Amino acid sequence: MNGPSLALRQRSLGDLSAEFPLFPPLTRGCPKTSTAELAYPLEVVYDYAKVDRDLFTGPPGPDIARWSPLLPPLDAPTLGEGGTPLITFGDVHIKDESRNPTWSHKDRLNRVAVSAAVASGAPGVVVASSGNHGASAAAYAARAGLPAIVLASADSPPAVQAFVRSYGAKVVSVPVEARWPLLRQVVDELGYHPVSNQTATHTGHPFGPEGYKTIAYELFLQLGTVPAAVFTPTGYAELLYGVWKGFAELRLLGVADRTPRMFSCETAAGGPHAKALATGAPAAVVGLGPTDAYGVACSVGGHRGVAAVRDSGGDPVLVTDEDLRLAQRDLARAGLWQELSGAAGLAGYRRLRRDFDGPVVCIATSSGFKDVGVATERHPALEEPTLEDLIP
Amino acid sequence: MNGPSLALRQRSLGDLSAEFPLFPPLTRGCPKTSTAELAYPLEVVYDYAKVDRDLFTGPPGPDIARWSPLLPPLDAPTLGEGGTPLITFGDVHIKDESRNPTWSHKDRLNRVAVSAAVASGAPGVVVASSGNHGASAAAYAARAGLPAIVLASADSPPAVQAFVRSYGAKVVSVPVEARWPLLRQVVDELGYHPVSNQTATHTGHPFGPEGYKTIAYELFLQLGTVPAAVFTPTGYAELLYGVWKGFAELRLLGVADRTPRMFSCETAAGGPHAKALATGAPAAVVGLGPTDAYGVACSVGGHRGVAAVRDSGGDPVLVTDEDLRLAQRDLARAGLWQELSGAAGLAGYRRLRRDFDGPVVCIATSSGFKDVGVATERHPALEEPTLEDLIP
Repeated sequence: MNGPSLALRQRSLGDLSAEFPLFPPLTRGCPKTSTAELAYPLEVVYDYAKVDRDLFTGPPGPDIARWSPLLPPLDAPTLGEGGTPLITFGDVHIKDESRNPTWSHKDRLNRVAVSAAVASGAPGVVVASSGNHGASAAAYAARAGLPAIVLASADSPPAVQAFVRSYGAKVVSVPVEARWPLLRQVVDELGYHPVSNQTATHTGHPFGPEGYKTIAYELFLQLGTVPAAVFTPTGYAELLYGVWKGFAELRLLGVADRTPRMFSCETAAGGPHAKALATGAPAAVVGLGPTDAYGVACSVGGHRGVAAVRDSGGDPVLVTDEDLRLAQRDLARAGLWQELSGAAGLAGYRRLRRDFDGPVVCIATSSGFKDVGVATERHPALEEPTLEDLIP
Repeated sequence: MNGPSLALRQRSLGDLSAEFPLFPPLTRGCPKTSTAELAYPLEVVYDYAKVDRDLFTGPPGPDIARWSPLLPPLDAPTLGEGGTPLITFGDVHIKDESRNPTWSHKDRLNRVAVSAAVASGAPGVVVASSGNHGASAAAYAARAGLPAIVLASADSPPAVQAFVRSYGAKVVSVPVEARWPLLRQVVDELGYHPVSNQTATHTGHPFGPEGYKTIAYELFLQLGTVPAAVFTPTGYAELLYGVWKGFAELRLLGVADRTPRMFSCETAAGGPHAKALATGAPAAVVGLGPTDAYGVACSVGGHRGVAAVRDSGGDPVLVTDEDLRLAQRDLARAGLWQELSGAAGLAGYRRLRRDFDGPVVCIATSSGFKDVGVATERHPALEEPTLEDLIP
């Protein structure tokens, strides 16, 4: 059913006529259209004419190699990413990405990005991350037999610190202002393959969102149709863009006849994509206020998310920590314990209060174990408990 | 492909001719063969002649309703349990059960046990558990709209305390000696449906292992054959027995022509099934020494595990915390971060050092987030990090 990668080359989102070979992945953005203040990311172009439409029959299943013709070459072994369930919740569908190998959506990206490191012959992988992304990159690098360096934050929740360190990577907590210079140094001097952003506005790994496309393909199979709207937790918007691109490809291939509206659900403490969309800028950088939603707290936005929201007819939605807490609580009371950031899709849907002519999907990105505040409370045993103490 | 439940009745493991109606589930063991010291569990019998063999074609997929003809009625809604990936690791296959809705194998049991509560019209669910089982029961009860009472241990790791409390259940930490009397009181006085054991040797919920059978069905589809050996982390041995029963059914139905040897991997700090097997007893109770593998640390064994190991031609294997730590570390260095108890399958395989004529499966039960020691370390940021600090 699947087959070899049909990836042809990289293409600039700053100028769609600016194309580059597939390798090396241009991890510092488009060299033709980027400026010191505004960087444009690249995407991957495929030989779409050769895609067998049978690819879109049959079940999703774990291992995104299921979709290999529409992904860059998967040289890194799988950990069984993807194939996550779609759970009904009230009038929406929750795509539960906490069911991935390291319990977040990031595994889809890292299967692809670490594959690029392997294919490039890099001696290792380097990532700057406070949580999910660093752990996921470390896991895929470990699986592929590559060393990994994780530039971590000392502020991450303690359970997340253990998580990031579990996979045998070199994890070093560094001050936030040291992260990006060190990342660049590791890339330039050690030749490690970067799976984090290195530019003024976000570009990230050009192959990364390709992994997220598989969510769109799965949703199409799971719903039997294209949803009317998709709400995604949005930090750098790689997830948002990837899901959008997957649906755009389904229409391009004639497999589907429409695309969903895409809603970027950002923390109200930041919201660089909302700002760019409001001002008409290709991308924006904003100040960042306090929030517990550290997984989506980004001051730097990128052009991918702006393009996806705009081209899909969607909108940005800013959600407060209170919105997030309510969504998190209600999901947990339906059996789905999400990280605060992971509940942003549902929180955004609720805040928008709009009706849609078709299924609505809220992507839930990550397990509640990764949250701020987890493992800080103590619950001593009652000394002489009675039935009265147990009545709910 | 699937269809309604073909469950007919309950049958005693103490006397296979002692049968009982399917409802009510006999949650205090076989009333005919049990004594004050030794309780026999019950299992579910199906109308096997009516099973369509097409049930065993096609992919596993999440939601164990995939296998509904061979399960008790599934009256509780799904959280997308099951359909977990099988990952190669050296010469064995790892069945990664951390990919379930609450990130452990327990979700398969609780879908079935909470369904029994719903079908019984119980006003709630009660469980005594220090971790995964309590959280999973709380999640499925929440999803089904039933209140849940969790009698928890104050000694659980702090991240697990948050986990168990996340789903909106009434969670009360009680002294260990108060757990069983309180559980019984909640059952007798509030009419709550128990999903924990209530007998002198372990019997547990008669429907519980039926959920674990689905692991055997999935393994058969994933491997395209029956494995030669299955190593399971073993506490009360409900998982072990369930997997064994699934394979025994495949042979009974003529779908497979052999069954695997089953190996119960118990902590050397306890090991009630190893003791029963060594002495020829139907079940045993042992003292429990110190161990960090709290998820499989049981002093009370049951007849299910004894029967499964014996009837399958397997053996018990006792693993030390050191065995577990090595297995946990090596799995993590291949991208699979398991709870210490969750690594017992691999640890048991390694300790046994036996060759098998066919595939070997080690079941890995739960995410590393649930471990003792998680969230206890702090990693302050280096003040002036340099490249030298990052070299792996």
